[in-house]
Amino acid sequence: MTAVETYLRANRARVLDDIVRFIAIPSVSTDPAHTVDVRRAADFVAAQLRGAGLADAMIHSTPGHPIVTASWRHAPGQPTVLIYGHFDVQPPDPLQAWHTPPFSPVIREARLYGRGASDDKGPMMIPIKVVEAYLATQRRLPVNLVFLFEGEEEVSSAHLGGFIAANKDLLAADFALSADGAQWRADLPSLITGSRGICALELEVFGASKDLHSGRHGGAVANPIQALVRLLAALHDEDGKVAVPGFYDEVAALPPGEIEAIAAIPFDEAGYLRAIGAAAGFGEAGYGLLQRNWIRPTLEFNGIGGGYAGPGKKTVIPSRAMAKISCRLVPDQAPEVIAQRVADFLRAKTPPGVRLALALEAGGARPYAIAPDHPGLVLAEAVLQEVTGIRPRHVRMGATVPFGGLLKDNLGIDTVFFSFATSDEDYHAPNEFFRLSSLDAGLAAWSSYLRRLARP
Amino acid sequence: MTAVETYLRANRARVLDDIVRFIAIPSVSTDPAHTVDVRRAADFVAAQLRGAGLADAMIHSTPGHPIVTASWRHAPGQPTVLIYGHFDVQPPDPLQAWHTPPFSPVIREARLYGRGASDDKGPMMIPIKVVEAYLATQRRLPVNLVFLFEGEEEVSSAHLGGFIAANKDLLAADFALSADGAQWRADLPSLITGSRGICALELEVFGASKDLHSGRHGGAVANPIQALVRLLAALHDEDGKVAVPGFYDEVAALPPGEIEAIAAIPFDEAGYLRAIGAAAGFGEAGYGLLQRNWIRPTLEFNGIGGGYAGPGKKTVIPSRAMAKISCRLVPDQAPEVIAQRVADFLRAKTPPGVRLALALEAGGARPYAIAPDHPGLVLAEAVLQEVTGIRPRHVRMGATVPFGGLLKDNLGIDTVFFSFATSDEDYHAPNEFFRLSSLDAGLAAWSSYLRRLARP
Repeated sequence: MTAVETYLRANRARVLDDIVRFIAIPSVSTDPAHTVDVRRAADFVAAQLRGAGLADAMIHSTPGHPIVTASWRHAPGQPTVLIYGHFDVQPPDPLQAWHTPPFSPVIREARLYGRGASDDKGPMMIPIKVVEAYLATQRRLPVNLVFLFEGEEEVSSAHLGGFIAANKDLLAADFALSADGAQWRADLPSLITGSRGICALELEVFGASKDLHSGRHGGAVANPIQALVRLLAALHDEDGKVAVPGFYDEVAALPPGEIEAIAAIPFDEAGYLRAIGAAAGFGEAGYGLLQRNWIRPTLEFNGIGGGYAGPGKKTVIPSRAMAKISCRLVPDQAPEVIAQRVADFLRAKTPPGVRLALALEAGGARPYAIAPDHPGLVLAEAVLQEVTGIRPRHVRMGATVPFGGLLKDNLGIDTVFFSFATSDEDYHAPNEFFRLSSLDAGLAAWSSYLRRLARP
Repeated sequence: MTAVETYLRANRARVLDDIVRFIAIPSVSTDPAHTVDVRRAADFVAAQLRGAGLADAMIHSTPGHPIVTASWRHAPGQPTVLIYGHFDVQPPDPLQAWHTPPFSPVIREARLYGRGASDDKGPMMIPIKVVEAYLATQRRLPVNLVFLFEGEEEVSSAHLGGFIAANKDLLAADFALSADGAQWRADLPSLITGSRGICALELEVFGASKDLHSGRHGGAVANPIQALVRLLAALHDEDGKVAVPGFYDEVAALPPGEIEAIAAIPFDEAGYLRAIGAAAGFGEAGYGLLQRNWIRPTLEFNGIGGGYAGPGKKTVIPSRAMAKISCRLVPDQAPEVIAQRVADFLRAKTPPGVRLALALEAGGARPYAIAPDHPGLVLAEAVLQEVTGIRPRHVRMGATVPFGGLLKDNLGIDTVFFSFATSDEDYHAPNEFFRLSSLDAGLAAWSSYLRRLARP
C-alpha cells in the first residue's frame, strides 16, 4: 500500500465527516432564497482546498453564484490537469418523499443519504482529499493541477463560460478530469465519450385577468389550461417524435460502429425498468431504449401548473397556466437554435383568446463528445480496470455537463469524465445517496490516476 | 313604510354585523381541514334562526356536512314556501391575490369583501332577518315557511338529495324560493328560468414510480405530463366542441322563441370581456357568447399539476401528473352518464407507458328549468319591478344550483331563484364581495314577497 493510500485509510472518518458537513449546506442554486447557502458552500470548498495544502485557493465572484479555484504547478515537465466539480445542488422537492431530511445527511446500509451526496458533493471531495494525502505524505504532487469548482452547474453553468474565457492563464491545462458526470451503472465500470446538451424554456398562458367561476363564465372565454394542453400536445407526434419543424436537422451522424457497440453492451432493459418502477419503455419510435437515451434528442415537460390542484374540487377557470420544457441535445444541435425553433412553433400554434409569454432560459449547454483514443481517456480506462478488475465500457451520457463544451470552446481542451457517482443514486430526485464503496474506489482511483499520469 | 321595513332599517347595523361574523367562519366544505368550521357555521345559522323567533331550528347530521332547518306553519289556508340557501364557501385560493384576508370581512366603498359574502352568506341572511322583522313587529308571518340551509353546495350537495327524500313532511311546501343563484348582472334585474348541471372528475397519470433525472432517463420512458396533455387536448376538437362521443346526444331542444329572446337581451359583450379582463370571447364554434354560457354544455379544466413548477428549472421527469375536469350540463344531460362517457374516452385514449387513475366525483347535479309562467316566478317578477323600477328579464344561469333538480326530483316542486347576489361579485375567485345596496334591496324585496304571496 502506498503512503497516500495509508493516509487516506487512516483519515477516512474525517473525510466522511467533511462530506457530511458539506451536504448539510443547502446550496440550491436555482432558488434565490438559497443564494447565501451557495456562498457558504463556496467558503467551505475554499477552506477544504486550503486545508489540503493549496494556499492559493480563491473565491471568484460572478454575476451569479461564485466559482472556487486552487492550483499546484510545481512539477515542471509534467502534464497539467484541470479538475472540475460543482458545489451547488438540485432543489429537494418533493420534500415529503424523503425518508430523512435532505440536508441532514445520514448513513444507512453503507450509503450516505442527502441532497447532493452523489451530485456532486461526494464525488468532488475525492480529488481534494487525494491532493491532501499527496501533500501531507510527500509534500508534492506527481503532476501539475488546477481545481475549478462552480456553483451553477444545476442552472446550466450560466457564468462558467465567461469566467473560463477571462481566466485562460489561471486555468491552462493539457486536459480536464471531471469529478462530475456519474458512471452509467453501479455494476459495470464505464467511461463517457459524449454527453447531451440542454436548452430550456418556460411558457405561461394567460386568459382572463382573474380566475373565473366555471359556471358563470364557462363557455364564454378561453380556458388557459385548455390552450396550454393543446400547445404542449402539439410538440410531439403520434410516434413520440418531436414535431417542431427543424428539430432534428443538425443531428450529426454517429462514429462508425457506435450503433453496434451500443447493441453489444450488456443491458437488462427489464431490470432497468423495474428499478425505476416503469411498466414499459416509451419514446421516439424506431430507436431502442439506450439509443433514445444516449444518441437521440428529447423534448421533456418538467413541470406544469394552473388552477386548483388541492384536495376536493374548485370550479374555476384559471387566469393562468404554465409549463416548463427542456430539450436534451445531441451533437451538433445548438441550444439557442433549438430553443428558438420550439419558441417559434409555440407562438405560431397559440390558439385565439389567450396570450402566450415565453421565457427562453439563458445558459443552455452544448452537447459534447471526446475521441475514443484520447490519452486521458485511455489512462482512465486502465485505472478503472486496475481498481475494479473489470474492463470499462465506452458509453454516452443522456445527461448534461455543460463544462465539457465550455472548456472545448474556450481553452480547446478535452474532458475526461472520472466521477464515482453512479446513475442509480437518485440525484435530482428524493432520497439521493452516495455509496461509501464508491467513495473508497474513487479515492484509490484518483490516487492512482495522478501517479500514473506523471511521465517517468 | 311598513313596520317590518322600519324594524329592518333600525336594526341595519346589527344585521350587517351578523353577516360579518358569519363570513369570518372559514366554512370551506371541500377541504377536510375545515370540517369543524362548516359545523361552526351550521351552529351560527341555527342560532340566527332561533334569534329570529323560530324555536324549532335544528341541526341535522349527514354523512357529510350538516343541514339546518327551521319552520313556521301557523298561517292556515296560506301557501307554504321552502326557503333555500347554503352556509359553506369555496376555498380562498390563491390567497396572495386577496387585497385583504378572505375571512376577515371588511367594508370598502359600500361593498362587503370576504369569501362567501356573495355566495351565499350575505344573500341567505336576508330571509332570516326578514322573518325576524315580521315576528318582532307582528308576532306572525304572512305565509307558512320552512328554511333549508345546507353545508355542501360547493361540493355538489352530495347529501342533500337523501336528506330531502327522508324528510318530506318536514319540508312539504308549494314551491321553493332560493336565496342562492346570483342575478345575472348588477345593472339589469333578472330571473333565472334554468341552471346548468355539473359533473366532475379527477385524473392522475402515473409513469415511473419515482421522479427521474430528465437527462439520465429522458427518452427512455414515458413522461406523465406528456401523456396527460395528449389526453386533455383530445377532449376538444379544433372548433372548441367537446370531442367525447355522445357528449351532446341528450341536449334538449329549446322552448320556442328562446334563441330570439336571448338575442333581444341588451348585452354589452365588449364591456363584459373588459370587466373580466379577457381579450376575446372563445368557445364552441357556431354559438354566441350568451348561448355558449347558458344553453350549451361545456367541458372545463379546473386545475392541472405535475413536476416542478417553482422558481428556476428542475430537470425532472415527474412520476405523476394530474388534472381536474368539470362539465356544465344543460337539459336533459344526466351527470352520471356524461361523466362516464368522458371517463371511457380518457381510458380509451391513454397512451402506452403510463397508468391512468380516474375518480368520478359523487354528487353531480342535474340541470334545471322552470316554466316561464310559474306563479312564484311571476310574483318574483312583480316584486323585483316594484323594488328596482325595472322590468326583470328571464335569463338562464351558466352556473349550477343542485338544489333545484333535487327538489323537483324528490318533492315535485319548482324553485324560484330570488337571490340578491350578482354575478360580477367575484365569488369562486379572490376578493369576493357583496354590495350593501343589494342587501338593502334584498331586505325590501323579501319583505314584500312574503306579504304579497299571502292570499287576501
